[in-house]
Amino acid sequence: MSLKRKDLLGIKDLEVEEINLILSTAESFKEVGGREIKKVPTLRGRTVVNLFFEPSTRTRASFELAAKRLSADVINISAGSSSAVKGETLMDTAKNLEAMGADLIVVRHGSSGAPALLARALRCSVINAGDGAHEHPTQALLDLSTIQERKGRLAGLTVVIVGDVLHSRVARSNLWGLTKLGARVRLVGPPTMVPRDLGAFGAEVYTSLDEALDGADVVMTLRLQLERQGRAFFPTLREYGRLWGLTRERLQRAKPDVLVMHPGPVNRGVEIAPEVADGLSSVILAQVTNGLAVRMAVLYLLSGGKSE
Amino acid sequence: MSLKRKDLLGIKDLEVEEINLILSTAESFKEVGGREIKKVPTLRGRTVVNLFFEPSTRTRASFELAAKRLSADVINISAGSSSAVKGETLMDTAKNLEAMGADLIVVRHGSSGAPALLARALRCSVINAGDGAHEHPTQALLDLSTIQERKGRLAGLTVVIVGDVLHSRVARSNLWGLTKLGARVRLVGPPTMVPRDLGAFGAEVYTSLDEALDGADVVMTLRLQLERQGRAFFPTLREYGRLWGLTRERLQRAKPDVLVMHPGPVNRGVEIAPEVADGLSSVILAQVTNGLAVRMAVLYLLSGGKSE
Amino acid sequence: MSLKRKDLLGIKDLEVEEINLILSTAESFKEVGGREIKKVPTLRGRTVVNLFFEPSTRTRASFELAAKRLSADVINISAGSSSAVKGETLMDTAKNLEAMGADLIVVRHGSSGAPALLARALRCSVINAGDGAHEHPTQALLDLSTIQERKGRLAGLTVVIVGDVLHSRVARSNLWGLTKLGARVRLVGPPTMVPRDLGAFGAEVYTSLDEALDGADVVMTLRLQLERQGRAFFPTLREYGRLWGLTRERLQRAKPDVLVMHPGPVNRGVEIAPEVADGLSSVILAQVTNGLAVRMAVLYLLSGGKSE
Repeated sequence: MSLKRKDLLGIKDLEVEEINLILSTAESFKEVGGREIKKVPTLRGRTVVNLFFEPSTRTRASFELAAKRLSADVINISAGSSSAVKGETLMDTAKNLEAMGADLIVVRHGSSGAPALLARALRCSVINAGDGAHEHPTQALLDLSTIQERKGRLAGLTVVIVGDVLHSRVARSNLWGLTKLGARVRLVGPPTMVPRDLGAFGAEVYTSLDEALDGADVVMTLRLQLERQGRAFFPTLREYGRLWGLTRERLQRAKPDVLVMHPGPVNRGVEIAPEVADGLSSVILAQVTNGLAVRMAVLYLLSGGKSE
Repeated sequence: MSLKRKDLLGIKDLEVEEINLILSTAESFKEVGGREIKKVPTLRGRTVVNLFFEPSTRTRASFELAAKRLSADVINISAGSSSAVKGETLMDTAKNLEAMGADLIVVRHGSSGAPALLARALRCSVINAGDGAHEHPTQALLDLSTIQERKGRLAGLTVVIVGDVLHSRVARSNLWGLTKLGARVRLVGPPTMVPRDLGAFGAEVYTSLDEALDGADVVMTLRLQLERQGRAFFPTLREYGRLWGLTRERLQRAKPDVLVMHPGPVNRGVEIAPEVADGLSSVILAQVTNGLAVRMAVLYLLSGGKSE
Repeated sequence: MSLKRKDLLGIKDLEVEEINLILSTAESFKEVGGREIKKVPTLRGRTVVNLFFEPSTRTRASFELAAKRLSADVINISAGSSSAVKGETLMDTAKNLEAMGADLIVVRHGSSGAPALLARALRCSVINAGDGAHEHPTQALLDLSTIQERKGRLAGLTVVIVGDVLHSRVARSNLWGLTKLGARVRLVGPPTMVPRDLGAFGAEVYTSLDEALDGADVVMTLRLQLERQGRAFFPTLREYGRLWGLTRERLQRAKPDVLVMHPGPVNRGVEIAPEVADGLSSVILAQVTNGLAVRMAVLYLLSGGKSE
C-alpha cells in the first residue's frame, strides 16, 4: 500500500487508512533506530531541504537525522524569524529550492497555511513541520504512534490535552488524529486558552483539570510558549503552574497506567512537575525516539515508498 | 581534456577553451540532476568547505548540493558580515581549513580580491563565490550555460544587462564571459550606476532602456542591492522601477524569443515586473537548475576531472 | 586493545596507557588524512552530534570532518552563548538527542563540569570539546601527538606554557597530559594569570619568560581570550605583547630545534610575533592536521573500536 498524496500538510485532511499506513510504516522503521548501523539506502540520491522560518532545534534535528538514516542528502536553510519574510519571497525561495532538485521540502513557518501555499505551487513534496497555530502533523503522528505502542490501540481511550489549546498547533493536529482514530478527547486549561466552542471539534471542554483527569488513559501537556504569548493570557507563571501544572497529586485521578506526554521542550515546574516529567508514567523520551521513525515513514511514503 | 588551473577566481582570466570545457562538462552533469538518484561517486572522500563571509542562502545551498551530488564531504562555515574580519584572520582561517584536509574552498567575501589572496597562499583549490564588486564567476557560467542551452550558441547574440552594473559582480563576470564568447553586450541603467567609461570593456553603454532592448536576444536584469546601496544612487524605489524596471510593454521591443534572466533573489516590481519574472520568456528557474550543474562541473574539473 | 570507558571528559582521569592508545590510534588515522579518498567506513550508521553552547569554528569543523571521514552521520547544534542555558535545559536537550539515537555527543559548554554531568546521565558517549576553564582534552591530545611526531618522545622534554594559564582549559589539559607522559612543564605569564600555587600540579612556575625559555624543547603559547577576560588582568595589549609575546629574539634562548605551538586562533603580534607563528619552528598547522586524526581516534575508540 502506498500514500496517494504529494504532501503532508495536516492531520485534518488525512483518511484513517492513511494515518494507519504511516503508523505501521513507522513501526518498521523503529527497528532501524535500534540497530548499530542505523541506516538504510532507501532515499539515496534524493534531496531533502529543511526550510525553517522559525527557530527549532529538535524538529529540525529529527527531520535531518530521519533523512540521513534513509541516506538522503539534506540541507538546512533557516531564515531569521525577525526578518520579515513576505509570501512572495517565501514562494521564490521554495521555487528556487525545487529548481535545485529538492525532492522534499520540510517547512516550518509562523503563518498558518504557508506550507499549503507552497504545496500548491510546487511539484516536489512539502511536509508541514509546524505552521502558525494551524497544524504540526508529524508531532501528532508521533504522539499517536507512542500511544499505540504503549496501549496497543487508540480507539476508546480517554486523552486529556491540557494547556494553551487555542494557540497550539500540536493540540490541533492531535485533536484531529485522536478523534479520527476513535479516542475521546478532553480539552482543559485557562478559559482564555480553551474557549468553550472548541467543543465543536469533537472534544469535551473542561474547566477543572482535576475533573478532566478523572479516569484518563493519556495526558498530553502542552508547552507554554513563554516567548510568544506574552503575559496576556494568565497572571503569573506561578499561578499558571498552581492551577494547570500536572503534579503527582493531580495525576492520581487518572488511571494507574496513565501515559504522560509533552511535545518538548519542557518548562519544568510550569506545565509539568519535574517528578512527573521524569516519572514512570512519562513517555516523553519515547515520543522523541518515535518522532524519528514517524518522520522516516513520512519521508519514505511521500517519496513513493510502499508498505505491505 | 582537463582544466589546467588550481582555482576559479574570475571569468576575466579564463581562456575561451576553458569556458567551453566547463560548459560542456556542465551539460553532462545536467543529466544527473534529472535522475531519481541524483548522485555520482566522483568526489567521494574529498572535502569541500563553504566559507561564506557574506550571508547567502542560494549560492551556498547550490554549492552544498553540487558537492553532495558528487559524494564529497561538505562543511559550511559562515562568518558574520558584521564581525570585522581582518585579512590576516581570513588567511589563518583558510590555512586552518587546508590543514584539516580541505580539497576545495568555496569562498564568498565582501572584499574584491580576497579569494585571489587565498588562492596564492594555499595549495588547495579556491573557488570564488562572489568577492565584493569584482567577480562571481559561477553565476556568469550558469548564465552562459542557460543561454547556450536555449539559443544553441552565444556568438552573435545581443545581450542587454540592465541595472546597477557598476556595483555588480554578476554584471562584471558576465561582461567578460559574453564578450569572450562573441556576444554583443549592451549595458543600461541610471547614469550613476552605468558610467560611460564602462564602454571600454567591450560593451555599448545605453542611457535609454527602450533603445537598449531593441532587437535584444537576452535581457539580464540585475538585482537592486537594497541592503547595500543605501539610497544614494536613485531617488525612490518607485522611480527606479518606473525608469529601469523590465515590464511587459518594454519587453516588446526585444526579439519575440527573447530570454529574460535574473540572478535572484528578485525584488518583484522593482527591477522586474512579476508577470515578466514568471512569464514565458523567463528562464530564471532554469538558471538555478543549471547553476547546480555548472558548480558540479567546476568542482569536478578543479579536482582533476577530465571531459572528452 | 580498546578504550574501557564510555566518555572522554578530561586528561586528568586518563591512565598513561589510555593516552598512549589514543595517540597510537591517531597515528594510523593520520595516514587516512593523506589519501586522495580521505574516508573509511568505520562508523557508518552511527550518529555524532556536535552540541556547542559556545561559538567555535575550528573545533566544531574538526570534529565534523573527523566524524564524516569515519562515515558517521553528523548533526550540528549550536546554542547562542547569550541565551542563558539552565542546567536543566542542557540535560533535557542532551536526553532528547540521545532519544533520537545519538551515539556520541561532542559538547562544548561555558561551565566547567557540564560534560561530566551529561556523561553521568546518558548511556551514549560524551566527548568534552572544552568546558569553562576546566579541560579541553582533544586539544591536549593533539598537542601531545604533534610533539611525539616531531620529537619521537615526550618523556624528558622541557615544555614551556606561556600566557593565561589560570583561565586556560588548554593549559590545564596539557599540564595533566605532559606530566603523565614524563615531560617537565614550566608555566609562565603575568602573575595574575599564573599564580604561584599552580606549582602544586607538578609544574615549575616562572615569572620571567626569558628564564622559562632557557633550553626549552617546546613552547606552547596560549591564546589571549580578548573577548572573555576584559582588561582586568593586564594593562594594555601592547604591554602584554612586550612582556609575554613570543618573539624571535626571545626564542633564541630555547633549544635550536624548539617547537612553537599555539591552539589557535592566533592573535598575531600579541601572544606571538607573526614571524614566529609562520617560522620554521612553528608546528601550528601540524597541530590542526593532527587534531583531525586525534578526533577520529577518539570517536573510533569510544565507539568500541580496537587498536593492535
